Amino acid sequence: MKDKLSEIPLLYDFYGQLLTPKQREYLELYYHHDLSLGEIGEEFSISRQAVYDIIRRGEKVLGEYEAKLGLVARFRKEREELVHILEYLEKLKKEERPREHFILSIEKIVKELIEP
Amino acid sequence: MKDKLSEIPLLYDFYGQLLTPKQREYLELYYHHDLSLGEIGEEFSISRQAVYDIIRRGEKVLGEYEAKLGLVARFRKEREELVHILEYLEKLKKEERPREHFILSIEKIVKELIEP
Repeated sequence: MKDKLSEIPLLYDFYGQLLTPKQREYLELYYHHDLSLGEIGEEFSISRQAVYDIIRRGEKVLGEYEAKLGLVARFRKEREELVHILEYLEKLKKEERPREHFILSIEKIVKELIEP
Repeated sequence: MKDKLSEIPLLYDFYGQLLTPKQREYLELYYHHDLSLGEIGEEFSISRQAVYDIIRRGEKVLGEYEAKLGLVARFRKEREELVHILEYLEKLKKEERPREHFILSIEKIVKELIEP
């Protein structure tokens, strides 16, 4: 099953340049251009299974880099912190007077993002 | 010349796990534990030049990963944006009433960091 909601596109965004040109091409057609395995197979005159194998191999390599480096996980964690900042900003907007408390909370998050 | 202010420690933080165990060990002794090339050489009974070669090779590999992936550059750019947020927060703190303008500026930066 094609799972576009999986983390592959995010892994690809981080580590795609470490794949072979062929892996990159197939993954882009499959994930970014939304072609099916069969359509990619027709395009290159190879079997659906062969396309599947190349894409799965590429996905595996991306997963291995993430297992070693964890940079996508780090990015996700940062994004969660940034969402917290947005929530504090919403609270700040609703106040007539600036609430030092919210400002300091934002500042704390930002400083931790800058110097982990 | 040992250049601890270079970007090697940052590159190592991102890509160190892609080096060989030996490269990692030598780079950590040199950059994190502040040993000299000569001291590392004594520790492993090899020449200062051999230590230098291993470290330079590791640095080169780190540089090659960054050239391909640019994740350290991306991180640096994000950090600059976060510093802008801190500046806006300082301005916010000085206001008696919350300045919508500053809040919206922060919000804009954060949203762009979340969805580049």
